[in-house]
Amino acid sequence: MTDPAILDRLAATIEARKSADPATSYVARLLHEGEDKILRKVVEEATEILLASKDGDKRHIARETADLWFHCLVLLAHHGLGPNDVLNELLCREGTSGIDEKALRKMG
Amino acid sequence: MTDPAILDRLAATIEARKSADPATSYVARLLHEGEDKILRKVVEEATEILLASKDGDKRHIARETADLWFHCLVLLAHHGLGPNDVLNELLCREGTSGIDEKALRKMG
Amino acid sequence: MTDPAILDRLAATIEARKSADPATSYVARLLHEGEDKILRKVVEEATEILLASKDGDKRHIARETADLWFHCLVLLAHHGLGPNDVLNELLCREGTSGIDEKALRKMG
Amino acid sequence: MTDPAILDRLAATIEARKSADPATSYVARLLHEGEDKILRKVVEEATEILLASKDGDKRHIARETADLWFHCLVLLAHHGLGPNDVLNELLCREGTSGIDEKALRKMG
Repeated sequence: MTDPAILDRLAATIEARKSADPATSYVARLLHEGEDKILRKVVEEATEILLASKDGDKRHIARETADLWFHCLVLLAHHGLGPNDVLNELLCREGTSGIDEKALRKMG
Repeated sequence: MTDPAILDRLAATIEARKSADPATSYVARLLHEGEDKILRKVVEEATEILLASKDGDKRHIARETADLWFHCLVLLAHHGLGPNDVLNELLCREGTSGIDEKALRKMG
Repeated sequence: MTDPAILDRLAATIEARKSADPATSYVARLLHEGEDKILRKVVEEATEILLASKDGDKRHIARETADLWFHCLVLLAHHGLGPNDVLNELLCREGTSGIDEKALRKMG
Repeated sequence: MTDPAILDRLAATIEARKSADPATSYVARLLHEGEDKILRKVVEEATEILLASKDGDKRHIARETADLWFHCLVLLAHHGLGPNDVLNELLCREGTSGIDEKALRKMG
């Protein structure tokens, strides 16, 4: 069973870390180091997904994707955004009969 | 209000596209072109997030993050995985009192 | 036998393309589309190197590295820089007895 | 004045580091850690170029491009290749009257 509320809980925790001590919290340190540091992590985790995929290690792929999505949440928090902003964008692309392929092609 | 079930619905639609015609479906074409093509898109969308972030355009950041997560779902489907595998990894890292910072540091 | 002057000749040709017609010249089009487009190509070509490397195809690795360096030259031209600016940086890191490992560690 | 022979000298030094102690040499450590580590650095340095470019800091762009090309040389050495293999690919694309735009378009 899924627990998609995990995205909201993670976002809330990241939000709370904004005022935490960078010396004791990984998220606080990341937010304190700023946008470029977070962006480096986003591309780094995308690269890790690529390497895990080429190795064909399914558990590793899931882990690295979790790492990537987590660091996306940190970037969103940096910009005052949250997971709902992303999920809403995905909803916009969903037509009445499944995915609106036209919208997806625009992404391609 | 969020609708986190969108991730499940997208995954189901992507799964259904596995047998669709690559000529008419963007997702079918992507799956047909294979792993390397999907991986290129994952890194490409991570790069788009970076460019959108440096431009400071919030709506654009949310859109590009949606594009990235969507292409991650396509990669997961390619490997027989789904969004729950990613959310479960995120759950593992969540301790009893919020995020397990030790687990997150390991990601850092 | 090497012909390292190829970097200078490529840079001169790229420079000349600044005033060429984007409709007929790939380089002119790239320069006309601007910085973000060139940056996308730089990351894209780095990703291609990664994929070629994982496939272990040596000719392909050399080709993709050529593509990356070429697009770096286009980016340098966009900024009014050239290959000598890069080679001079590499020279700075070369100590009297081979590579200055301390300088390289700073890169690491 | 350029000194393009720097690429050959760097390649020779990297080659010599293959038998050096990973504890004292950055290059030896990188080669010892293997292909994935070197590939991570290649994408990382491409990302640094992107961030430096968006900041518009010319000296920084040249430095990060030097870092990228250097790590490309390490990857080439890992595969038994060298800078001449890259320069020769670039030569192939140079037509009799400057860059062969058709070859470059293929890269696009």
